[in-house]
Amino acid sequence: MKKRAFPLEKVYRLLGSGPVVLISSLRDQAPNIMPIAWTIPLDFDPPLVGCCIGDHSYTFATVKKSRELVINIPTVDLVKKVYACGKCSGRQVDKFRSFGLTQRPASKVKAPLIEECYANLECRVVDMSQIKKYNLFIVEVVAAHVAPTKKPPKTLHHITGKRFMVGGREINA
Amino acid sequence: MKKRAFPLEKVYRLLGSGPVVLISSLRDQAPNIMPIAWTIPLDFDPPLVGCCIGDHSYTFATVKKSRELVINIPTVDLVKKVYACGKCSGRQVDKFRSFGLTQRPASKVKAPLIEECYANLECRVVDMSQIKKYNLFIVEVVAAHVAPTKKPPKTLHHITGKRFMVGGREINA
Repeated sequence: MKKRAFPLEKVYRLLGSGPVVLISSLRDQAPNIMPIAWTIPLDFDPPLVGCCIGDHSYTFATVKKSRELVINIPTVDLVKKVYACGKCSGRQVDKFRSFGLTQRPASKVKAPLIEECYANLECRVVDMSQIKKYNLFIVEVVAAHVAPTKKPPKTLHHITGKRFMVGGREINA
Repeated sequence: MKKRAFPLEKVYRLLGSGPVVLISSLRDQAPNIMPIAWTIPLDFDPPLVGCCIGDHSYTFATVKKSRELVINIPTVDLVKKVYACGKCSGRQVDKFRSFGLTQRPASKVKAPLIEECYANLECRVVDMSQIKKYNLFIVEVVAAHVAPTKKPPKTLHHITGKRFMVGGREINA
């Protein structure tokens, strides 16, 4: 998917509507993927984002150690892969290989981008003070790549279990 | 709008998809409203939610003092009122009166519910340690009232400025 560099101070526009994201990370040369529904923009410039990552996950341990991750934003065509990525652990499964997702090298972090997602945000962890109490990593987006689209992307928004809401039309207030 | 008590351990389902919410609060007997786009569920049971509230706002000062708020979830029919509530300050304007919104008494907090919203979550602030650095209030939902609907509610999801994405169809992975 052809992507362009995206202005960092506008990154909040990609996450503010609450899409499910895929967190990619790297540990001992092995890449991993985990879907999460709980993220929050926390500042515009530099763009800060809070990511709530379950503390039993392999991704939690990896990000705590590597202090970096990529936030990849999928669209509705990937829903089955997104769900499948959440039903197994990177401790046992190579999710890129198992679910036919493609790694691309990032520009500023070692964790890979997921090619099939319409947006990739390279992030460095800047604050781990809230991971013990809330599983909340606070990251700074240091590079952003977004596929230009005419229509709003059909993002996924998690309700519960297998249920997702799909992003709808855009309106002006 | 007729509402029922909603199970607290399922409150994450209402906020996880990333809707814009209206924060209602009370100061010196005067109720106020502020729309915010940046919230994050942080736990299921008891339900904890992070709310990023701009520190120059009247709501920030009010919530810091009163340590309670109500998270009200509007649907698309309220988009003009939601936007208008964000363009002025409770320091100058009685927003309930100016925008034709209706107060209802809450059951466990003093801040009022907004009748026109399909869901009302009564909250108490449980952690203010992150308000200085990130404007992030961490609240516990202590009572929840939700209008039963057959179809998924057409929630608003903020992009930027006057631009909102409307919640679309529901799918199963």
